[in-house]
Amino acid sequence: MPPRRCPAYHESDYDDDDDDNITMRCLSCEEDYDPDNAGTCKECYDEANETEEELKRQIQDLKTKVSFLTLSSPLDSPSTTDLVLLPSNDAFSPSVPAHKAVLVSRSPVFKAMLENDMEESRSGTIKIADVSYDALRAFVNYLYTAEACLDNQMACNLLVLAEKYQVKHLKAYCEKYLISKMNWEKAILNFAFAHQHNANQLQDAAMAVIMENMDNLTKNDDYMELVETNPRLVVEIYEAYLAKQVNTASTLRL
Amino acid sequence: MPPRRCPAYHESDYDDDDDDNITMRCLSCEEDYDPDNAGTCKECYDEANETEEELKRQIQDLKTKVSFLTLSSPLDSPSTTDLVLLPSNDAFSPSVPAHKAVLVSRSPVFKAMLENDMEESRSGTIKIADVSYDALRAFVNYLYTAEACLDNQMACNLLVLAEKYQVKHLKAYCEKYLISKMNWEKAILNFAFAHQHNANQLQDAAMAVIMENMDNLTKNDDYMELVETNPRLVVEIYEAYLAKQVNTASTLRL
Repeated sequence: MPPRRCPAYHESDYDDDDDDNITMRCLSCEEDYDPDNAGTCKECYDEANETEEELKRQIQDLKTKVSFLTLSSPLDSPSTTDLVLLPSNDAFSPSVPAHKAVLVSRSPVFKAMLENDMEESRSGTIKIADVSYDALRAFVNYLYTAEACLDNQMACNLLVLAEKYQVKHLKAYCEKYLISKMNWEKAILNFAFAHQHNANQLQDAAMAVIMENMDNLTKNDDYMELVETNPRLVVEIYEAYLAKQVNTASTLRL
Repeated sequence: MPPRRCPAYHESDYDDDDDDNITMRCLSCEEDYDPDNAGTCKECYDEANETEEELKRQIQDLKTKVSFLTLSSPLDSPSTTDLVLLPSNDAFSPSVPAHKAVLVSRSPVFKAMLENDMEESRSGTIKIADVSYDALRAFVNYLYTAEACLDNQMACNLLVLAEKYQVKHLKAYCEKYLISKMNWEKAILNFAFAHQHNANQLQDAAMAVIMENMDNLTKNDDYMELVETNPRLVVEIYEAYLAKQVNTASTLRL
């Protein structure tokens, strides 16, 4: 007695005399497969499809919400701003206009500064040290739009500002960018930079790349510089390496 | 020769002598199924799983972004506000503080009002007619947070404000709520309300419910009132009904 026929069978391949040739047609890619490569039953396939549709609807709703909540940049319409930010190291730099309400909403540091009747609140000017006009402008823009156009340098500049003013969302955004561009050439510098600015995810990612390149470590120029400038950090690398070695050895013994 | 054995086979059910009993185990629900109920091949199952993970990551990212972009309500920290909104029909009502920058970002009507040196911009007071303090407060809150706590009345009140000040996101939010609560008892009122405030999705949803209840239409109190107050709208109902009848008849003839 042959197996029951059903729409999922591919009739042409179906052969009563040779059960080895039983194939079904995948409802997703519409290609034939045999029982070895069976995935889901039809019910779960339908359910997964519904879930995917639902998730896509949620994404669409959230995108609309993001677009609604995005504020227009204060650089486009500075008329209602009540504050300026100024790169304090550059006397000739233009200032960046902003709204106290937005700064307070985005950063606990600005919140403390502006709600506690400090100098910045009274004068309506916040001086920011060690920052270029371009970076400051991008920083303020991000506070309004949650978007920034990054390259390696800008990601580093914004990460520093994000850490200083505790803008977690921007910090994660910059770390994600730097991690996506990570390679052995950048690993040591990224590791030192991440350590300096408490960027744990970036530091872990840099450490992982360093661990994969220990053979080349001592030939690396950035490594040699780090030994001079921050030997304590170099020790961290060797400690991680040692821990990995010990771990591998004990796994092999098991 | 029996079919090749594979992990997807459920060994205990597998029987060389009775091919009708071939079953596979679904990788998703882990239950047995037979070829009649085959869904996907394993490759597509894995791919769908990855897609779902990726969509969930996107949702998580978007939720974090929404949370970052959400502003704190001006009612919680009114210190930096530069404007008040006032229910103009109630001389004793408190005003609702807000920021010009936020209102301008969320509503083209407020934008025109506040950027064109009109009375409201100079005085820092926007009078809003025909609105309760609670509705106005909820309206302003929504402009900062994209969230509102709705019941039927509040959804209607906010929809009216959303339409008046062209806050599309809020209008869609209210329509969605009212559609989710739609039934025959509310259909006629919702239909008239939606028509009055250009809420097309709500109007379509109400019309659909009315079409399903045409047998009871002329006994409905709201219908009888609508015939008196807005017979033109009642005509729309009958026109839709007629079009449906004609459509059904021509489908039956095919």
